[in-house]
Amino acid sequence: MAAEKKKRRRSEDDDDDAALPFKNRLKPDSVILQILQSFSSSSSAASTSKTLTLSDLSLSTTCREVADLSLTSVQSTIESLVLKIAKSILSGNGFSFDVPSRTSTNQLYVPELDRIVLKDKNTLRPFANVSSVRKSTITARILQLIHQLCMKNIHVTKRDLFYTDVKLFQDQSQSDAVLDDVSCMLGCTRSSLNVIAAEKGVVVGRLIFSDNGDMIDCTKMGMGGKAIPPNIDRVGDMQSDAMFILLVEKDAAYIRLAEDRFYNRFPCIIVTAKGQPDVATRLFLRKMKVELKLPVLALVDSDPYGLKILSVYGCGSKNMSYDSANLTTPDIKWLGVRPSDLDKYKIPEQCRLPMTEQDIKTGKDLLEEDFVKKNPGWVEELTLMVKTKQKAEIQALSTFGFQYLSEVYLPLKLQQKDWL
Amino acid sequence: MAAEKKKRRRSEDDDDDAALPFKNRLKPDSVILQILQSFSSSSSAASTSKTLTLSDLSLSTTCREVADLSLTSVQSTIESLVLKIAKSILSGNGFSFDVPSRTSTNQLYVPELDRIVLKDKNTLRPFANVSSVRKSTITARILQLIHQLCMKNIHVTKRDLFYTDVKLFQDQSQSDAVLDDVSCMLGCTRSSLNVIAAEKGVVVGRLIFSDNGDMIDCTKMGMGGKAIPPNIDRVGDMQSDAMFILLVEKDAAYIRLAEDRFYNRFPCIIVTAKGQPDVATRLFLRKMKVELKLPVLALVDSDPYGLKILSVYGCGSKNMSYDSANLTTPDIKWLGVRPSDLDKYKIPEQCRLPMTEQDIKTGKDLLEEDFVKKNPGWVEELTLMVKTKQKAEIQALSTFGFQYLSEVYLPLKLQQKDWL
Repeated sequence: MAAEKKKRRRSEDDDDDAALPFKNRLKPDSVILQILQSFSSSSSAASTSKTLTLSDLSLSTTCREVADLSLTSVQSTIESLVLKIAKSILSGNGFSFDVPSRTSTNQLYVPELDRIVLKDKNTLRPFANVSSVRKSTITARILQLIHQLCMKNIHVTKRDLFYTDVKLFQDQSQSDAVLDDVSCMLGCTRSSLNVIAAEKGVVVGRLIFSDNGDMIDCTKMGMGGKAIPPNIDRVGDMQSDAMFILLVEKDAAYIRLAEDRFYNRFPCIIVTAKGQPDVATRLFLRKMKVELKLPVLALVDSDPYGLKILSVYGCGSKNMSYDSANLTTPDIKWLGVRPSDLDKYKIPEQCRLPMTEQDIKTGKDLLEEDFVKKNPGWVEELTLMVKTKQKAEIQALSTFGFQYLSEVYLPLKLQQKDWL
Repeated sequence: MAAEKKKRRRSEDDDDDAALPFKNRLKPDSVILQILQSFSSSSSAASTSKTLTLSDLSLSTTCREVADLSLTSVQSTIESLVLKIAKSILSGNGFSFDVPSRTSTNQLYVPELDRIVLKDKNTLRPFANVSSVRKSTITARILQLIHQLCMKNIHVTKRDLFYTDVKLFQDQSQSDAVLDDVSCMLGCTRSSLNVIAAEKGVVVGRLIFSDNGDMIDCTKMGMGGKAIPPNIDRVGDMQSDAMFILLVEKDAAYIRLAEDRFYNRFPCIIVTAKGQPDVATRLFLRKMKVELKLPVLALVDSDPYGLKILSVYGCGSKNMSYDSANLTTPDIKWLGVRPSDLDKYKIPEQCRLPMTEQDIKTGKDLLEEDFVKKNPGWVEELTLMVKTKQKAEIQALSTFGFQYLSEVYLPLKLQQKDWL
């Protein structure tokens, strides 16, 4: 044991750590913690000041949003709708569903809210019409199935829903699309319908919460962390002494930080969806941000997809814009890895990758997006990326040693408040 | 509250549950639990009787296997190897690495062990040779990096390893391949080298274990479950009162069983890798089987890939056959969904899918594999699948109601001991 300790010390000396870029600029942790403390409390103050909602804005076009509804409300809303339809049939008028349009021409980016919302165009879906009879039948069936879920109080996946009536739905894209229509019609979120997506995110660090009645302490989840629950409505009682939330794109970086218990050195909550953000992780992140009033710092690859992922967490995907209020986490800071970091941190040429034609196109398209344009720092970084035609993964930092990420890069970023 | 309860009861009556296929054949849970109890103890007795290892067999060809080594052993093995090389250089002979061959001609399926192992062919990798100088340099560099990991006692991913010397490795497939070579050379598992794969599996149910020093109770992990740790060497202290392990292919089925807390009705541990089995989940499953001596029942889709996934858990992938002893879980039973279940459980035609040409080819190829051939029941099922040209997902059972899987299908399967 003593021999092993000695060996380890020797190996640290051998490392010649002073040669690591910027290692010598790091101040003591106590100084960095003070910086974080003031950042965290200013962010919390900003959160407690009233959050803008759609109704606070006098928009020329009326916009539509959905809300989390209780199971009982969803159930009674469906029952009222069905009663209305029955009356319409009995009075000899047949029936139609009045469905909010979810096409891109009916979407709007609202800068004050920093997210995409749905405008108020509706489409009639009459039953007695050759072109819409199938879709209105599917709509009725989905309403019935959702009603059943409400009464049983269980959760199912979209795939389960599809299999309950393959003959009618034919393929899953049809039941999925109508499910989103039904969310909009009832004015509630998809999670209120008890239809959930498979989870793939994990969380570790300074967070305690309840999952379906069980209290979970995320500082005691070892290296694997806690799987983020698929059903946000059974998540609650969040408590934390963290100073910020660290949102990580990839699991390799997550594993490094979890093993090093980074959250013990700098109190934080570390969360990742392992790539593309899924609905469960997006809902979980938002809930943490809203309940704990913590700032969110993002660590993504330095490529157009890293920024795109950040944008999905931040202002939502176009497909689910009707639910942007619940799915998005406003004011996420871009911590790294940013295009300017490549030179600043002297990432060697061979650890950078040339951008493909497609990468460059995606980068240029992003420069036209409202959520990028409103942040001059992001525009500058993205312009640099497209100009240099170079990208890099978070893992490129391993070139300076496996623990460079947790021991130098992140602490220095925090110390310098180097986020945008 | 009372009103809601009443509503729920009424809804159950409405369901006309008796019409569900086979619901009326279910015996009381106490009867099924007795059946499971005797299955579980016979399986445990079988496990405690000595497990066959390679050295117990007198095989005409000598085979090679790796073992879990402690970090200190890995370190000293590397040091001895390097000393030998230094001596060889000093005596004017230059140096070569002696690398076990991992090609398919050097692989062997051993029926007694029910897994693929590596034969004893070696290849010399001399430094002073144009065709192997690059590979032997990479080998030396990987040995040095692993030695560093041993001294620091940290875990990294294959991607991290690649980025420490992109200039030399050029692309990740090169460092990955040499990493497997190094495992074989040192005679140890890849996890002994502290190089880990990103985890994607989750576990829930009657299991308590320690992850990096934290005790985890998997009955208190809500619906999300516990993420399976990437580093098996920090997993320990497994305790369980389960009667079996239920291995589930997909997360939709996992979510259903976790929400219904199936493990409370029939004491079990539920585990899934959400599709293709990853190394972390395979190691975790094996560790559970070995330490808890529980039978493993598999619930996979009724298609060739379901059986292929089962086979990877059961007898390993060809690429990592040198480590098959640690990565495989012997004697996994095929519970369902089996091709014969489609008619038996009256799965409607529209919930079955036609097999593609590729599916049929994969099915026929599987029929030629040793691990299928040695189980006559599997051959029969697979032959039926290829003949009917029909496949079905686990979720197809939702056609009888969302909870048919947990309330009828699985209990009846257990009651009838209907596994192969």
